[in-house]
Amino acid sequence: MKDTLGLNWEHRFASRADHMKSSAIRELLKLAEQPDFISFAGGFPAPEFFPAREIEETLARLCDSDSLQYGPTEGYRPLRQLWADRLGGKVEEILITTGSQQALDLLGKVLVEPGSTVLVENPTYLAALQAWRVYGAKFAGTPLDQDGLQVDNLPTQGQFLYTIPTFQNPSGATLSLQRRHQLIEWSHKHQIPLIEDDPYGALRFEGEPLPKLVELDPNVVHLCTYSKTLAPSLRVGVLVGAPELICKLVQAKQATDLHTSTLNQRVAYELDTSGYIEKHVMELRQVYKQRRDAMVAAVRKYFPPHTRMIVPQGGMFLWLTLDHDFDSVAALERCVPHKVAYVPGNNFHPHGGDPHTMRLNFSNTRPEMIEEGIRRIAEEL
Amino acid sequence: MKDTLGLNWEHRFASRADHMKSSAIRELLKLAEQPDFISFAGGFPAPEFFPAREIEETLARLCDSDSLQYGPTEGYRPLRQLWADRLGGKVEEILITTGSQQALDLLGKVLVEPGSTVLVENPTYLAALQAWRVYGAKFAGTPLDQDGLQVDNLPTQGQFLYTIPTFQNPSGATLSLQRRHQLIEWSHKHQIPLIEDDPYGALRFEGEPLPKLVELDPNVVHLCTYSKTLAPSLRVGVLVGAPELICKLVQAKQATDLHTSTLNQRVAYELDTSGYIEKHVMELRQVYKQRRDAMVAAVRKYFPPHTRMIVPQGGMFLWLTLDHDFDSVAALERCVPHKVAYVPGNNFHPHGGDPHTMRLNFSNTRPEMIEEGIRRIAEEL
Repeated sequence: MKDTLGLNWEHRFASRADHMKSSAIRELLKLAEQPDFISFAGGFPAPEFFPAREIEETLARLCDSDSLQYGPTEGYRPLRQLWADRLGGKVEEILITTGSQQALDLLGKVLVEPGSTVLVENPTYLAALQAWRVYGAKFAGTPLDQDGLQVDNLPTQGQFLYTIPTFQNPSGATLSLQRRHQLIEWSHKHQIPLIEDDPYGALRFEGEPLPKLVELDPNVVHLCTYSKTLAPSLRVGVLVGAPELICKLVQAKQATDLHTSTLNQRVAYELDTSGYIEKHVMELRQVYKQRRDAMVAAVRKYFPPHTRMIVPQGGMFLWLTLDHDFDSVAALERCVPHKVAYVPGNNFHPHGGDPHTMRLNFSNTRPEMIEEGIRRIAEEL
Repeated sequence: MKDTLGLNWEHRFASRADHMKSSAIRELLKLAEQPDFISFAGGFPAPEFFPAREIEETLARLCDSDSLQYGPTEGYRPLRQLWADRLGGKVEEILITTGSQQALDLLGKVLVEPGSTVLVENPTYLAALQAWRVYGAKFAGTPLDQDGLQVDNLPTQGQFLYTIPTFQNPSGATLSLQRRHQLIEWSHKHQIPLIEDDPYGALRFEGEPLPKLVELDPNVVHLCTYSKTLAPSLRVGVLVGAPELICKLVQAKQATDLHTSTLNQRVAYELDTSGYIEKHVMELRQVYKQRRDAMVAAVRKYFPPHTRMIVPQGGMFLWLTLDHDFDSVAALERCVPHKVAYVPGNNFHPHGGDPHTMRLNFSNTRPEMIEEGIRRIAEEL
C-alpha cells in the first residue's frame, strides 16, 4: 500500500518550509543528553533548583474541574490582571502564551509580511530568527557592545525592532539607561514599534536594576516568561501590548493551540502572588552568580589572554570573542569527543559570520564542573 | 508619549491577519460563561467527570526536575513509543503536539502554500478552517450524509483531504467501512494525502468499532488528543505521520513553542499505560450516551416533527436540519435572552450558507438540563 501512494512529502511542503532548518543548538542538545557530558550549549536553568515540591503541592491543590477544562484563549484572568497591575496597565493589554516562544510565533504570524524587514540585535536569539523567517521576514542586524545595542547605528526603516535589553541572549550585554531613552526616541521618530523580550531581567546578580522599556514607554510590546523564574515545562509566558494588537494575537492563538494550560497558569499565578517566586529568584541569583564567577575565572585562567568577554551582570550566558582567525565551529568538533559543548557564535547572526565567537551557558552546570569544562575547551582552542 | 508614537496597529498587520476573525463560537462561549446558562454551544467534555484525583496524584508523583526542564521538541519518548506500538509504527512517526489544534496549525505551516486548495468535509471543524486560512488555504467542501463523507463526490485535485471520519464534528456522522476503503483508493488514485482527525473515536456508545483510516493505510496522517479522554487543559495531542513529514513538523514546532509540557505528557503517558484511561473512557461512554439519549428524546418531543437528525453512535455533537426557510442565526439571537445557546450551522461551512442547521453539544450538560434547554430552544423556533 505504501508503495502505491509513495507519498514524497518533501515535494509537498509549502515554500515557507524551506526556511525551517534544524538548528545547530538542536543537534548539540542531542549530544548533550549523554550523561557525563558538560554542556554549555543549551539555555537551560539549573534543574537541581527547580521548586519541584512547591509546584507539586500547588498543582495538587489546584487540580480541579475548572483548571482541567478548556479555558479562554486570552489566558487565566487573575494572571492577566496580576501582570496588568504590575505594569500599570489594563487586563486587555495582557495575553498569556504557551511559553515566550509562542509569543514570538504569534507576533510573526500577525506582523510579518513576506519580504518585510525585521530589525534585530546582532547577534540575537536564534529561535526568534527561526520563528519569523517562516513568515518571510528579512533581517537587518545592528551590533551590540558593553552598553547593549548600538542605538546610533540603527536603520530608519523596518517592521519592528526586536531587542533583549537586559542580559541579552547570547551576548550577556545590558542596554544602558541612556540608550534605553535613546531607543524609545528612535522608535517614536521613525514610527517603528519595539518588541522587548525580557526572560532574564529578574536574574540580576549585581548592579542597579534598570527600568524595562515598557516601563519607560507603554507603546513597547513586552514579553516575559515563567520558564526561568519557575520552570520551563509549565510553558507559561506573558505578552503585554496594546489592546488592538492583543485582540489580533488572540485570534491567531485561537487557531494555533486554543489556549494555554489553565492548570499551569494557575500554578504560576499562585506561586507569583504568594511571593514565593520573588523569594525563589533571590536564591537563583546567588546560585547563578556563583556559576558565572566560576566560568569567568576559568576563562581567565585557561583561555588565551586576549580573549574578550562582556561580564554579564545577570542572566545565563557568557559571550566570548577570540582571535580573528579562530574558528569556533571547527573547535566545537574537536571539543565534542572530549564531552564538552558550547554554541558557535555564527548561529546567532541572521546572516551567519562571526566565527571567532562562542556562547557559553553557565546556569545549567555546577561550579566545579564549569572549571573542568572550560579547561577542556581551552585545550582544543 | 503614547500620542507621539500613536501606533495604529491595525495598519501594521500582515495581510494574513485579514483571515483571522473572532468566531461565532468564541463569542457564544463568552455568553455561556454566565452561571445559569444552558450552553450546547461549546465542544467541552463533562467537567464533573474529569479524573481530577488521578491526575492530581499522578502530577504529584511525576513532578521532578526532569519533567520540569525543557524537553525535546518531538515529545516525551515513552509516550511516542506507546503510540508507535499502538499503531504498529516507529517512534520516528510520532510527534507530540500542544493539543490537536497545534497539529492543525503545524500541518498548515508546513503544507499549505498560499492559494492552494484544501479538501474538507462540508460542514467541518471550524478551527481547522481558521488554522489553514491564515496560511492562505482555499477550501473545497464535499457534503456528508448518514454514512459520512460522500466519497463519490470528491474533487480530484487538492493539497490534502481533511476528514473526521468517526463521530464527525459537527455532523456526528461516521464514515462507513465501505467508504473508508473507497476513500483510501481515491487518495491513491489521485495522489492526495489524507489527514484523519480522531478526537472522538474512543467515545463510542454503540455499534461495532470501525478501523481508523491509519489502520487501513499507513500513509494516512493521523491526529489524536487526550483532551476528550483525560482533560483538555493538559494540552497533549498526538500526530502520526511519515518520518520525513514529522521531521519537518518538528522544525516548525521548535519555532512555535519549543516543546509540549513534559510534565503534562508524562501524566498522559502514566494514565494511559496503567490502563486507567481505558477504564475511564468506559465510564464516559455511559455518561455521554445518557446525555445523547436525553437530547435526542427532547428534540423528538419539542422540535418540529420534520426536524432531521443523524443520531450519532458516539462523540459529543448532535446536528439538526430544520425547514429550509429556518434561520438558525436569528433563532439564536432569540434564544440567548432565555439563557440557552447552540452554534448555527453556517459557521462550519468554509463558504457559509446552510442557515437552517444547528450543532448541539450534549457532553457538557446534565441530562435533566438537556431537556430544559431543548424545550427553551424549541419555543423560539
